[in-house]
Amino acid sequence: MALIVQKYGGSSLADADKIKNVARRIARTRDADNKVVAVVSAMGDTTDDLIALSEQVSERPEPREMDVLLSTGELVSCTLMAMALRSMGYKAISLSGAQAGIRTNSSHGEAQIAGMHPERLMQELDNDTIVIVAGFQGISEDLDITTLGRGGSDTTAVALAAAMGAARCEVYTDVDGIYTADPRLVPAAHKLDDISFEEMLELASYGAKMNPRSIELGMVYDTPILVASSYRDEPGTLIHGGADMNRQVGEIRNRVSGIATDTNVSKITVRGVTDRPGIAASLFEPLTEVGVSVDVIVQNASVGGSTDMTFTVKRTDLARAEQVVQQVANDLGSGEVVTASDLAKLSIVGTGMQNAPGYASAMFRTLADEGINIEMITTSEIRITCLVNEDQVAQAARALHTAFDLDTTD
Amino acid sequence: MALIVQKYGGSSLADADKIKNVARRIARTRDADNKVVAVVSAMGDTTDDLIALSEQVSERPEPREMDVLLSTGELVSCTLMAMALRSMGYKAISLSGAQAGIRTNSSHGEAQIAGMHPERLMQELDNDTIVIVAGFQGISEDLDITTLGRGGSDTTAVALAAAMGAARCEVYTDVDGIYTADPRLVPAAHKLDDISFEEMLELASYGAKMNPRSIELGMVYDTPILVASSYRDEPGTLIHGGADMNRQVGEIRNRVSGIATDTNVSKITVRGVTDRPGIAASLFEPLTEVGVSVDVIVQNASVGGSTDMTFTVKRTDLARAEQVVQQVANDLGSGEVVTASDLAKLSIVGTGMQNAPGYASAMFRTLADEGINIEMITTSEIRITCLVNEDQVAQAARALHTAFDLDTTD
Repeated sequence: MALIVQKYGGSSLADADKIKNVARRIARTRDADNKVVAVVSAMGDTTDDLIALSEQVSERPEPREMDVLLSTGELVSCTLMAMALRSMGYKAISLSGAQAGIRTNSSHGEAQIAGMHPERLMQELDNDTIVIVAGFQGISEDLDITTLGRGGSDTTAVALAAAMGAARCEVYTDVDGIYTADPRLVPAAHKLDDISFEEMLELASYGAKMNPRSIELGMVYDTPILVASSYRDEPGTLIHGGADMNRQVGEIRNRVSGIATDTNVSKITVRGVTDRPGIAASLFEPLTEVGVSVDVIVQNASVGGSTDMTFTVKRTDLARAEQVVQQVANDLGSGEVVTASDLAKLSIVGTGMQNAPGYASAMFRTLADEGINIEMITTSEIRITCLVNEDQVAQAARALHTAFDLDTTD
Repeated sequence: MALIVQKYGGSSLADADKIKNVARRIARTRDADNKVVAVVSAMGDTTDDLIALSEQVSERPEPREMDVLLSTGELVSCTLMAMALRSMGYKAISLSGAQAGIRTNSSHGEAQIAGMHPERLMQELDNDTIVIVAGFQGISEDLDITTLGRGGSDTTAVALAAAMGAARCEVYTDVDGIYTADPRLVPAAHKLDDISFEEMLELASYGAKMNPRSIELGMVYDTPILVASSYRDEPGTLIHGGADMNRQVGEIRNRVSGIATDTNVSKITVRGVTDRPGIAASLFEPLTEVGVSVDVIVQNASVGGSTDMTFTVKRTDLARAEQVVQQVANDLGSGEVVTASDLAKLSIVGTGMQNAPGYASAMFRTLADEGINIEMITTSEIRITCLVNEDQVAQAARALHTAFDLDTTD
């Protein structure tokens, strides 16, 4: 008897009929002689509706109050799911995040899991009961409700699967798996049967939008994660730790797993920055303070003791970032601040790229042949990212998809 | 610095603007140098909406799941209220029933308070913080959420006021106090300035629909309860233990406080019941099992070893009750079962009636003079109730209101 942890997203729980559909899926997993824990998100747009309500009574709702407010969405869906299963004749019970033993720190709105104590959950499973857990939420040491941030129900599911040594964590969502590229940009994109945790972390910017923290948890505890459709009975994509080894068996196996694209990118350049120690810190610390993450950073070679500093931020953070950077640049006596929002990030990702030369040059050659200019470059062990003009990102993604042999499913 | 516990009902919290209005009322109480705890119900029709949702997924929702589901309504309103107060510059925090220390037994849907542990609440008050408590809910020994039944937020408020030794519990609602009679039936009805706990218990069937358990709590712990309008700044009615003594001071003070009327009444008669011990139990136990409360019971004098048994149930319970009674009557070999739903209960209430003769005969005389037939009679220490034809209840109430000198406010 295997233990399976499932997670169902809000769009598959938007009304009573959809809840009953999901209940039937959970029941089938139970019928196949598994122990089942199902983690649920809030129904449909509930979370957005609650946020809108809070904005009507307060311009800056307290994070602690906000967490209690938002956590009610998952309480509603988990009780309804337990009721639906019981009315189908199954033993089922709902547990809040606190009851499921999800202890967190007190960082309301973005709480981190501090410990897992699923004793009661295990006890219910031992009684042959299907356990429905309210996703996205935990409880702090002060016995206050906390939430794990957007996408936090994924984290709940993977953390429970890891803590209980589940055979698998199944994440059901409105896409049917992880694709080689965004199918809206690359018509030849196809679903991957499997992918490594590392690759998934790099690809997470498109397709099944898995919370990166949950992928890391799966990686650390070696808990395989299946991403599949809530609506169709198709196999989905398995994210696991062993992908690498399997791949080395196939001789002609392509070593690029997928192409990631991201258009939520803006570039900020500060010209004429005095080139002395600590200058980067004085620029980026104030951005961290206002909650802006900086992504790609390029510092030009110094000319006459002065340099240009270029970096990217999310386009949705640009206004906030520009204000802060302009202030710092004034304080530092730097030159002008220039911004651009017509860029996109384009990445090739694959664990097979480790220790195998030639991927970067092949990528640059492909883009050059298409007449696409590269604005900035950044790399990790298993990823090469180029910033290109947003207008050209679809063309670039299609060309790379072909060049790295992803158009066929071999 | 006095401690005031307030309670606001769902209709005064139906939208963001109404929540902000109530926040201003709470703030005014704080400004008057009081410590304030405010207990809130769920916004508007939230509870009914959640019940409707549960009925869409299950014909018989589990009481445990139902309690978690319904408790979310009060969590939403209490966080929004705390946010509204903070945005007005006040220190405020929301606490769930569990966090406020309301421990109950495990009778889901109708839980009884088993203990009050408001340590955290007291601590927040000591920090000069306004505490908003989610009404209607508690937590069981198993750490499961429970609810206190409809009207349970009143119980939460009075129980907190009693446990903390508050100066007063203020219940704000959509009526402005307790009336001498239902103003829709008796145009001369007027608001009472004060009333005793005992009288209020008897009158609770009309006007400000206070949960009887909360009145009992106030009585046992001698915590005065003010019932007043959420919308207007008018004095309301104070329910307290000392009303009796005050009244004896006034020489010509009327000893009937009010007239209660209730049209949610049906009568069931079982004819030809064999008159032997245990017959009443075998009739009423099955009704208790299906959750039907029996009110007035009359058993005729036995004739030839057989009798008629007549009793009343809520009209809303009649269908269920009739089915059960018909079954039992068949089993007992009794005669026919006859039901009637054209009745109403009519009561005069007043602690002054204790040890003072003549009230019953005055009531019967008044009804006789109006040509109103009395179907059944039942009495308590401070109440005399007659069952009359529903068509005549308004006429009867007006006549009694005049006869017992309630038309003027003296």
